[in-house]
Amino acid sequence: MVSLRWKDNCLFLLNQVKLPGAVEYIQCKDYRRVAEAIRRLEVRGAPAIGVAAAYGLLLGAAEIKETGTGFLEKLAEIAEILRQTRPTAVNLSWALDKMLTAAKEKYREKDPHPQEILTVLEMTAQFIMNEDSNVNRKISVFGASLFKDAKTGILTHCNAGALATVEHGTALGIIRQLWKEGRLEKVFADETRPLLQGARLTAWELMQDEIPVTLITDSMAGVVMKNGWVQAVVVGADRIARNGDVANKIGTYTVAVLAEKHHIPFYVAAPVSSFDFSLSDGSAIPIEERSANEVTHCCSVPIAPQGVAVYNPAFDVTPNELITAIVTEYGILRAPYNKSIDWLQSQKGGK
Amino acid sequence: MVSLRWKDNCLFLLNQVKLPGAVEYIQCKDYRRVAEAIRRLEVRGAPAIGVAAAYGLLLGAAEIKETGTGFLEKLAEIAEILRQTRPTAVNLSWALDKMLTAAKEKYREKDPHPQEILTVLEMTAQFIMNEDSNVNRKISVFGASLFKDAKTGILTHCNAGALATVEHGTALGIIRQLWKEGRLEKVFADETRPLLQGARLTAWELMQDEIPVTLITDSMAGVVMKNGWVQAVVVGADRIARNGDVANKIGTYTVAVLAEKHHIPFYVAAPVSSFDFSLSDGSAIPIEERSANEVTHCCSVPIAPQGVAVYNPAFDVTPNELITAIVTEYGILRAPYNKSIDWLQSQKGGK
Repeated sequence: MVSLRWKDNCLFLLNQVKLPGAVEYIQCKDYRRVAEAIRRLEVRGAPAIGVAAAYGLLLGAAEIKETGTGFLEKLAEIAEILRQTRPTAVNLSWALDKMLTAAKEKYREKDPHPQEILTVLEMTAQFIMNEDSNVNRKISVFGASLFKDAKTGILTHCNAGALATVEHGTALGIIRQLWKEGRLEKVFADETRPLLQGARLTAWELMQDEIPVTLITDSMAGVVMKNGWVQAVVVGADRIARNGDVANKIGTYTVAVLAEKHHIPFYVAAPVSSFDFSLSDGSAIPIEERSANEVTHCCSVPIAPQGVAVYNPAFDVTPNELITAIVTEYGILRAPYNKSIDWLQSQKGGK
Repeated sequence: MVSLRWKDNCLFLLNQVKLPGAVEYIQCKDYRRVAEAIRRLEVRGAPAIGVAAAYGLLLGAAEIKETGTGFLEKLAEIAEILRQTRPTAVNLSWALDKMLTAAKEKYREKDPHPQEILTVLEMTAQFIMNEDSNVNRKISVFGASLFKDAKTGILTHCNAGALATVEHGTALGIIRQLWKEGRLEKVFADETRPLLQGARLTAWELMQDEIPVTLITDSMAGVVMKNGWVQAVVVGADRIARNGDVANKIGTYTVAVLAEKHHIPFYVAAPVSSFDFSLSDGSAIPIEERSANEVTHCCSVPIAPQGVAVYNPAFDVTPNELITAIVTEYGILRAPYNKSIDWLQSQKGGK
């Protein structure tokens, strides 16, 4: 299963709002449609929206009439529109900055032909996409090495799978690897209200691969752990601060507290592009608040009294002390995270 | 607001499945309809189903043709049907046993007229109903005395309000009392998946009384506590074991773990009829597992892939060490609960 692909100058996005009821691809022929898809969560998951934004910028670049610095200015404007679609996942900015840097570097050469610039941008977007698949496979192998038991029950929250990336997934990549090695007992998927990415996406994705999955409501994670059915929690990340604090889908913090209470390891799986080396801790991570409708409704059906007050943060921050390890494509990070994240930054060549 | 009333030999139940979309009463003219209403959750909440079952048995008694021991046997059969509707809340059994005892005691007198028996049963049911209101007011005043702050934020889970009782409520009774005293800041209501009693019932009930309530998904309780917005958790109970372990709506255990992590007191509000003095601890409390449909659907809309495996316990057990105090109509119980529950049993006259 592939969540996005580039073909004939068009970005195809698997419409995640319609899953699991329908498997439909959205054709994006201009950057505005890509921005809309990110805002509407038709494409979601930190790595996936990074890749989508990169191709969005490529589509935007093809529209620019100006050349020279005029081109770069316009390109930066379009990047800003794409960057503003969602505030929390840092991969979005990371991918856009990679694209802008590639364009600028090409311009440092003397007077490139507009088509040459587009070629560079397309190659960069393709590199980001391909890298994502490679990175996920590395994360999966590193992650699976953490498990010593013959058979493991794993709980996951939200969707950090193929649908949240280009393919394979981060947290679900580790789960796929354990399954391949015959070392997975079963997966418990939190449904992940309000938007039900666990019920709609994780359960569907795992069932496609015939990996045993049991769906629970978010409120059942505690008793499932108390029953002894879970040997580890594995989740993804939307942004990781320098001290190892992790912003991820709302409810992740609750799962981390439950894991601590039950002495269950809590693992985060994320590529280096999810790290924000500029933030000293998680308190500075911007947390997106979304419409009250997401809470007062469920799949468009009203479930609460009209006019009720709602708090609807899309993410929360799990403090580093609740995190057993962070699995990256460079290896496994452990506390003290300031040190291990310094090491990670040196591996990827600084920023 | 009254969740149930008895008029013209008919039990009227506020249909809680239809709330908040519609305010409709179900007319129950025979015990089968009462049993159905309990099974379908048209009436729910431990104290409310106790009262409903008592009136159900009264309706059943009116159908019995036999007299003498034949009457008592038939009555016991009908009680058994009502008792089997839901396994976890002990108030159901408590109310039915009170009714059966009343009938038996009347039969010890010589040859009572069938109408006399019905009168005794009606008086007993009415006593159970009236007692419930009185009990809730006592719980509310005791509970409010626990709060020392001028203004308090409270988180509650599921619905332990007027709708779960005859009127006023247990956990929401305490909240109403604090509001009356001008000492409530606001209430955070967990939506309480799968059946959304928090979103549909608690939010609605509090809004009817103009008590400030903010609706959140169950997954947001952790961050709301971390934000410092909650000074106490107050919930109801479906069954309390002799050592103070509390069975309550699924997700209560998770909230209790979160409260412990954030050093927030966790209070349970329950009448003595919710105590099962015969159970030494919570492990023996039968936990109802309900249909997978409740998790794979939300208000009848499918939200998960067809055929996905589901775990759907309707309740969980919170161990006594996570409970700061249990508020009853006799007073406030604290650890060691074995002792304070012994005291409670002596107050109510043993069982």
